[in-house]
Amino acid sequence: MHFPGVLSHPRDCTDAGTPILRYIPAEKRQHPVAMLIRRYVRSINQTVTFAAFTKRAFTVDQRTRLSTFFVPQSDKVATATKEGSAHALLVKAGFLRQAAAGIYQLLPLGLRVQDKIERLVDRAMRGVGASKVALANLSSSELWKKTGRWEKGGDELIKVYDRKDTAFCLAPTHEEDITNLVANEVSSYRHLPVRLYQIGRKFRDERRPRFGLLRGREFVMKDLYTFDASEADALKTYDEVTRVYRELFDKIGVPYLVAEADSGNIGGSLSHEYHYMTKIGEDTVLNCKGCGYTANDERAATKLGRRDTSYETRYGLCSDNQLVAVHYPSGREINAISVRKTVPTFTGILLPSLEGKSWDSKLNVTHLFDENIAKDTTAPALPQNVECESSPSVVRELILIKAEASDPCPKCSHALESHRAIELGHTFHLGTKYSAPLGAKFVPEGGSKGSKDIIMGCHGLGISRMVAAIAEVTHDSKGLSWPVDVAPFKCAVIPGPKHDEVAEKVYDELTKVLGEDEVVLDERLGKSVGWKMKDADLAGYPFIVVVSKAWDKEQKVEFQVRKTGEKRYVTLEELGEAFKQ
Amino acid sequence: MHFPGVLSHPRDCTDAGTPILRYIPAEKRQHPVAMLIRRYVRSINQTVTFAAFTKRAFTVDQRTRLSTFFVPQSDKVATATKEGSAHALLVKAGFLRQAAAGIYQLLPLGLRVQDKIERLVDRAMRGVGASKVALANLSSSELWKKTGRWEKGGDELIKVYDRKDTAFCLAPTHEEDITNLVANEVSSYRHLPVRLYQIGRKFRDERRPRFGLLRGREFVMKDLYTFDASEADALKTYDEVTRVYRELFDKIGVPYLVAEADSGNIGGSLSHEYHYMTKIGEDTVLNCKGCGYTANDERAATKLGRRDTSYETRYGLCSDNQLVAVHYPSGREINAISVRKTVPTFTGILLPSLEGKSWDSKLNVTHLFDENIAKDTTAPALPQNVECESSPSVVRELILIKAEASDPCPKCSHALESHRAIELGHTFHLGTKYSAPLGAKFVPEGGSKGSKDIIMGCHGLGISRMVAAIAEVTHDSKGLSWPVDVAPFKCAVIPGPKHDEVAEKVYDELTKVLGEDEVVLDERLGKSVGWKMKDADLAGYPFIVVVSKAWDKEQKVEFQVRKTGEKRYVTLEELGEAFKQ
Ligand SMILES: [Zn+2]
Ligand SMILES: [Zn+2]
Repeated sequence: MHFPGVLSHPRDCTDAGTPILRYIPAEKRQHPVAMLIRRYVRSINQTVTFAAFTKRAFTVDQRTRLSTFFVPQSDKVATATKEGSAHALLVKAGFLRQAAAGIYQLLPLGLRVQDKIERLVDRAMRGVGASKVALANLSSSELWKKTGRWEKGGDELIKVYDRKDTAFCLAPTHEEDITNLVANEVSSYRHLPVRLYQIGRKFRDERRPRFGLLRGREFVMKDLYTFDASEADALKTYDEVTRVYRELFDKIGVPYLVAEADSGNIGGSLSHEYHYMTKIGEDTVLNCKGCGYTANDERAATKLGRRDTSYETRYGLCSDNQLVAVHYPSGREINAISVRKTVPTFTGILLPSLEGKSWDSKLNVTHLFDENIAKDTTAPALPQNVECESSPSVVRELILIKAEASDPCPKCSHALESHRAIELGHTFHLGTKYSAPLGAKFVPEGGSKGSKDIIMGCHGLGISRMVAAIAEVTHDSKGLSWPVDVAPFKCAVIPGPKHDEVAEKVYDELTKVLGEDEVVLDERLGKSVGWKMKDADLAGYPFIVVVSKAWDKEQKVEFQVRKTGEKRYVTLEELGEAFKQ
Repeated sequence: MHFPGVLSHPRDCTDAGTPILRYIPAEKRQHPVAMLIRRYVRSINQTVTFAAFTKRAFTVDQRTRLSTFFVPQSDKVATATKEGSAHALLVKAGFLRQAAAGIYQLLPLGLRVQDKIERLVDRAMRGVGASKVALANLSSSELWKKTGRWEKGGDELIKVYDRKDTAFCLAPTHEEDITNLVANEVSSYRHLPVRLYQIGRKFRDERRPRFGLLRGREFVMKDLYTFDASEADALKTYDEVTRVYRELFDKIGVPYLVAEADSGNIGGSLSHEYHYMTKIGEDTVLNCKGCGYTANDERAATKLGRRDTSYETRYGLCSDNQLVAVHYPSGREINAISVRKTVPTFTGILLPSLEGKSWDSKLNVTHLFDENIAKDTTAPALPQNVECESSPSVVRELILIKAEASDPCPKCSHALESHRAIELGHTFHLGTKYSAPLGAKFVPEGGSKGSKDIIMGCHGLGISRMVAAIAEVTHDSKGLSWPVDVAPFKCAVIPGPKHDEVAEKVYDELTKVLGEDEVVLDERLGKSVGWKMKDADLAGYPFIVVVSKAWDKEQKVEFQVRKTGEKRYVTLEELGEAFKQ
């Protein structure tokens, strides 16, 4: 900054540290520009040196100031990223940067959102009496070999070898480590239940990382592991976790779905997913508005109530000497998971014909009929190249097809709706899948009956994914728009020209209402009030308070609500009430 | 638990969930044991079911209860670990567990200590206007190759390859990533200064991991990186960081030393280390009580004030065609770093004789004389196998020897003291070591002079190491003894027999004085008050409050101070004051 005729100082001086006021000659003290400088120096209540003033304000006090707080807004970055998506907005508004494919750096605003979510999750975990631990990212291959997941982990498991060639993985999840930990500490029913959780980095070498934080290779998860003495206790624990998960999602305030889910590779028999609905979601969830039935598309059932006499057939290959013939209503899709419930060795491969196939041994064949096919339909003849061990078995009245949008709900017949969705949380009743191979046992009450495997549950939440998902669901044409409880700051204070001093007073008042570190002061030099309001809309602070002319006239500030666009003038006293609405 | 004659219920029943009071027949209601049960149920203000009572309390309310909070005290573990060391105490008291060599799991108490330290560090970083970020653990090899540290990192750098064989390391420090980030965002002097820090996991494949968290392979660090427009600004920043580091260490309250340090491999020219003094420390620090001069043994100087005419000589090999002959007072140790200051290519290898050595080319020889050797001493003849390029140069009056305990301080001649010490923090003035190769430049004020490299600093703090170091320095024969500001909980409340209800009242009062989550209630069943006091001493809570008979008589509790052993009886009103002393 250069003030010709006011400061007795060359523009490119380097004698930083000398108070700027010394450079105003006595006879220029009443010059309007000189008065502006003096007022500014007084307003920040600090000695301003020439160098500090000509660069930019970097004021360190108890207030969070956008001049000091690091919110880079590189035009380079903004234009290089596709406009419109929440991820592009997160980059443009300075919440995060990409370091490599699927690997992100959280900048201060982004980290604050993530920290807010973590604190809400901590509170939820306290609600089930869970204690917080911090396990290592490097996880010993020994344990993963015991559960068979060292091999099954496939390409997604990132393997690391130390200087002695000992194998570790970068843990994508911590069932092995936590079960081993608990196995060493728990020996009696008296030590149960145990509920442990952590919030930390996880690693997965995704084949196609994308959508920013939604599908990254290094991400932050909350993982809760529960240990109970009986199936009944474990199911009660599962219900308690469900309760605090719902409370957490209610608190954040973004509409969500809780879907019945298949428990998949992680094992167990009871599982739910927590979803936000959004076009860019990679999952599909079917939901009934009639009775609330919700399930992901791999699990969702439907009752078509048909009794077709014609049908289609697919042949399912198995990992043993079985073959499964699936008969289902024409034009529908087969649900592989349903087939596997009857024939567990089914590989998932379904063929319309077996032409050209041959087998080493004779086959055990099972015919599966969907419930929508007439009961008296006889099983068709098998292709000639299939040699049977014995006569084929027939199972009827199965639900074998995937539910689709506008199919009838299996519970109440209402039409199902289909939604694209992002999975944020996943709860699993694990049973003894990990406790058995890792020897997590306890002596039950009574004692004489020997030891039993601990019954486990695991309950994940994608913390960094939630940052992106909330941004995705809540953003609008002006930018991000955070729910109050996860916003990086609840309120931005924007001083009008010459209103720096009173803006600080307003900042301090707001802090009393909203909390110690919930307000940000935008006193950046050289930016207009209009620019700052647009920038605050982009960053998505739920509330904006502009301190300008209305203050001089009637001691009022302009109060803006980001989500509704509401704007009105209120006194400081009225502000407290305004936030509550 | 079994109450023959009181409960109408078999011992090994499984009908969990039925209120236990239903099992007391009407005619037994006044039985002393029945009354005890009824009083307990009333005291926790919850319906207690048979199963819950016979297992253990797992009460979830706003209070932290040791029956619910996970503090494993496996006798197996306790006896397997060497008694006496702080690490053994941390294991015994349930603060942490080892997962693999040099890899640890923080259990709830240990994580709370670490979290406390992190919050203090956050506050210190706010004191220099630093913004918090979260960089990835996986760091791109490209950047490390640009700074030359991909090769130099050696065996300690853990390298990881993804499914496409792209190379990453598990970052042991983040100069590369942060400099690259800032290089992309900062282009003008107007953007400077920038101060960014993070707290997170680091990885180093230590050859000999040991002393638990003191030297692990996966650990938590705070790393602050500073970016300034000029050397003068960067040095001011360095001073500000020094100030908040001192405030932080003062706040924790454990005596520490700030030592001048050699900046070593990480580069730069100004560097300080922050140490705790302890026998098991791996560093040596020399300290003058006269003037406060403190330096690590690699850097510490001394002024012996001798003028010896006899001396010893060592020959130093160089990485080029130089040879250095170091002449120093007999019986002392040569400081390789001092030699390198005059002859930068010196390898660190010092030989008493050159017998049998040969070289491909003629050598440039430099004689270095320590200042304690008489000025007029002539350089001795070189061994016959040394062929000189030209006549050797001679440099005198150098400080070439390492300072030792009871040597005179180089500044005030007072006797130096030598301490074994643990390094906890390290500050470096980096200059342009990273900004130059990674292209972190800015256009200075004035603009026409082209762009300049940003001047950097980096400032580390070993967060997980501090957990272990504080434990090491403060523990005593009874166990751990945490300073108030880093204790897992500030106070433990121990109810005497039949004092559960009033203990909860005391807990709630203490919470008002000490903070929301600073008190822990030890209502574990089946443990005596004496056992609980010993256990609280082992865990090291700074204060213990026992609610027992004195309450009934005169409404007083026993107030114990862990560090001093002080015990006295006070009223609830007096407790607030008692904590302040
Ligand atoms: Zn329905
Ligand atoms: Zn001295």
